[in-house]
Formats: sequence, structure tokens, C-alpha cells
Amino acid sequence: MDNTTQKPLILITNDDGYEAKGLASLVTVAREFGEVVVVVPDGPRSGMGHAITMNMPLRIKNYKNADGVRYYKTNGTPVDCIKLGQKVVLRNRKIDLVLSGINHGSNSSVSLIYSGTMAAAIEAAFESIPAIGVSLLNYAEDADFTTAMTYARKIIAKVLSHEFPPFICLNVNVPDVPVDEIKGVKITRQTHGFWKEDLEERVDVYGMKYYWLTGYLEDLDPNEDTCQWALKHNYVSVQPVQFDLTAHQYIDTLKFIEE
Amino acid sequence: MDNTTQKPLILITNDDGYEAKGLASLVTVAREFGEVVVVVPDGPRSGMGHAITMNMPLRIKNYKNADGVRYYKTNGTPVDCIKLGQKVVLRNRKIDLVLSGINHGSNSSVSLIYSGTMAAAIEAAFESIPAIGVSLLNYAEDADFTTAMTYARKIIAKVLSHEFPPFICLNVNVPDVPVDEIKGVKITRQTHGFWKEDLEERVDVYGMKYYWLTGYLEDLDPNEDTCQWALKHNYVSVQPVQFDLTAHQYIDTLKFIEE
Repeated sequence: MDNTTQKPLILITNDDGYEAKGLASLVTVAREFGEVVVVVPDGPRSGMGHAITMNMPLRIKNYKNADGVRYYKTNGTPVDCIKLGQKVVLRNRKIDLVLSGINHGSNSSVSLIYSGTMAAAIEAAFESIPAIGVSLLNYAEDADFTTAMTYARKIIAKVLSHEFPPFICLNVNVPDVPVDEIKGVKITRQTHGFWKEDLEERVDVYGMKYYWLTGYLEDLDPNEDTCQWALKHNYVSVQPVQFDLTAHQYIDTLKFIEE
Repeated sequence: MDNTTQKPLILITNDDGYEAKGLASLVTVAREFGEVVVVVPDGPRSGMGHAITMNMPLRIKNYKNADGVRYYKTNGTPVDCIKLGQKVVLRNRKIDLVLSGINHGSNSSVSLIYSGTMAAAIEAAFESIPAIGVSLLNYAEDADFTTAMTYARKIIAKVLSHEFPPFICLNVNVPDVPVDEIKGVKITRQTHGFWKEDLEERVDVYGMKYYWLTGYLEDLDPNEDTCQWALKHNYVSVQPVQFDLTAHQYIDTLKFIEE
């Protein structure tokens, strides 16, 4: 953030689309801190991971202006929203903070990697823009975002008033309980786990088979420093996220492939 | 791989779709090593990252059987292909190796994170199935895959005959040069860089604006142990890839957020 009297410039996106209650909740909180611009998908884009739109032109539309906030929607992905926000809407103005969410549903453990919400935050981290993805552990359309808003507000205030490390973002997950049941905030690491899938087979009205992805998160990592542990024990999980996927610990082990 | 006389079971996917020349090239190589089953998208899915299909039913069709290889195509993403391959096509048989590609175009540096090819390999790594994504540094539909096939063959042979570390996959990128110009194979780490985008603005036939993503890879990391260095110097880059995105180095720095 510039050391001037100017208000911070905050770009908001999400992956649940422009009509999501979680988006409205995040805008309400963000407005307390600065100038807010919203660039979001024109419908749900959950589970999009780090997808970008390469085979189709991108469209963007200024669909609303309210309370000093400009709202844009696009046919693109959450990651596209960051690019469109930077280049088309803000014309390369310096962004002080990217916020993504509030997601309807958890992005803890390996869900982080499937998450459009978090991919948007990671996209901002590529250019070292401080970024926070916020998720509530409730998938419902009409979930109660009070607790998530309270902790989003606390965390945004701290991020804007401290030096933020370069090339990272934060993955914030909030338990779905009333504020007074939250035990505190924990800085966590990503739980080692995976989605144990099933594909439910159904038959359509024309007699053709189709499948729905279904499953549950298999947790291989019960340790107390993980996001899953924190969330199960009613802590808000705040996880620093980076984007070097190298398995550095196996560089030497794999030298046999060079021979 | 089981220590029996059974041939290894190899599941192949890609992100360029069922008609890609790179897919046919990879199948040709894989058939030398085991029983091959192909599950691929029914069209191009480049830049899909770790997207999965949540809002739409998945369809899958056995579109060809040839030379002992079964071919399936789906309306899903590369990651969906792994799930459909495991659950629907192979009915939870033990898979010895997942191959993804051969991609038309590089997946080095941060492109790894946007890549559907590599997301499919990472999806296999979640369940500790050995997996290799192979990419050729040439986007053309009719690219010459001879060099990439030669090195895919060498690397698959080594992976199947050695113990493979758990919960990782390999990101293999091959320079677009004749085999005799390749200097060797290097185990590398992910180059720190990002896509410096522009969005090209155009006007459609109805007078409405639209945008195409365009840009170039900004390389912030000139070191000799990186994928970009290896590729520029005509080495095949082989990178071990993991999926813990925690920025462990900042866990302590960020403790101020807990207070």
C-alpha cells in the first residue's frame, strides 16, 4: 500500500458468481478499508482451479454501481477476473489488495488446488499483490456469513497494516459456528489429504448413462499444525500459500533419470 | 508396479483432446510398456488447470479400440479423465502409471499451474500413482514429436524400473529440436516467473467489445538448476512436482495474524 493518504485499492473476485451472498458479504467488509472494484464470473465457477479462457473471447460488463463500488461480470474464470480487473477495468493502476470469496464451502486441505477462489488469489500472488481468499465451511446459498465477515475484517486490517511477504497469498477458512464459539486464529499448513471420489452413475430420460462427481475428503494428516485440525477445533485457519510446486526433496533421488 | 509377470496398466490422458497428434505419439510409446487405456477430453481443454466438473453431468464414450488399446472420450476436464478412468473405465483396478500428453506446447515455469496436462498428473499423484506429464515446446497441431517420443520412452523405462517417490509426479518438457541436438536430461526446479498478460481488445461484428488473453512468460530466475535454463540450453527438463502449496517459510512471520 502506498504511504499516502489515498485509500487502498481493493479488487474483489469470487468463484460462486455475481449473485452469491458470500460476495456481497465480502464487499460490505472491504468497503470499510478502501476503494472497491468487483470483477466476478457471470455464474457459478466452483472447482475451476487455475483455469483460464484460451479458446473463447472474454466479455466483460459493468452491471452495477452502488455505494461507490463498481461491479463487473464476465464469462471468464476467477483467474480471468484478476487479469481483466488489472488490465481492462483498472488499466494497470496499482492494486493494494485482492480479495476472493467469501466462498460458500471449505477450501482447506487439497481442496485448495481445485478452488477457483484460491486460484484467483494465487494469480495475484504471481505479481506479488497481497491477496486473501476467504471461505466459509457452509455450502448453502443462504449461509450465515457473520462469523466469516468478522474474521475477514480482522485479517484484512492486519494485512493492510503490516508488511506482507512477497509472492504469497492467504487461504482463510472459517468454521461455520457463531462468532463466540471461535477459539481464535491459527496459522496453519496444508493438510495432506485427497478427495476419495466416487462417480454416481445415473441414466437420463433417453436411456443414456451419465455421472456426477461425489466423494469425501480423506485426511492423511492428523497433526495439530494443519488446517483441518484447526477447523475441526473451531479455529479460523490462515494459511500462507505459494506456487513453487517443485518437490525439492526428491531432486537428488531422481538423478538416476539424468543418466 | 506389481512384482508379477503381468504387464503394467497405463492410463493415458491429455488436455488437447482425442484428436491430438501428441496423444497418438504417447500411445505409440506407452504400448511398448504395458496395457494402455486412454481417457481424454472430447475436444481441446488447454489452460484448464485443476478444474473439475461439478455443475454438469459427465458423459463418457468408448470411441475406438485399436491395437489392444481402449479409447474413451468425455465432456470433462483432464482431471475428470483421471477420475473417470479410475472409477468408471478401470473399476478401481490398480493403475501402475499415468501418462499425460504429449502436450502441444511448453508446461515449464509457472505454466505448470495453468496446465490441464499437468493437473491430470498431479491428480494421480494425490493417490500416489506414479505419473508423468510430457510436453513438447511446439504448439503446432502437426508438430514433430520424434524427440519427445524418444525421451518419453527413456523416462518411462526408468520410472517403471526404479522405486518412484510417493505423492509426486514428473513434469517433463522437451525442446523442439532434433534428437541429436539434445544435450541430455536435467532434473530441474520450477523457474520463478509469471505470465505478463495483455488482453487484446477487439470489436465483434455487432459492435461489441471482446478480449483475447495474450502475453509472454516473464522469467525472474536465471539460475542453472531451473527448467527454463535447461530448456533454453537444449536439455530435456524433468521436474518432480508435489502439491503442498503451504509457504512454510512464512508460517512464523505471519504469527502476528493470530494475535
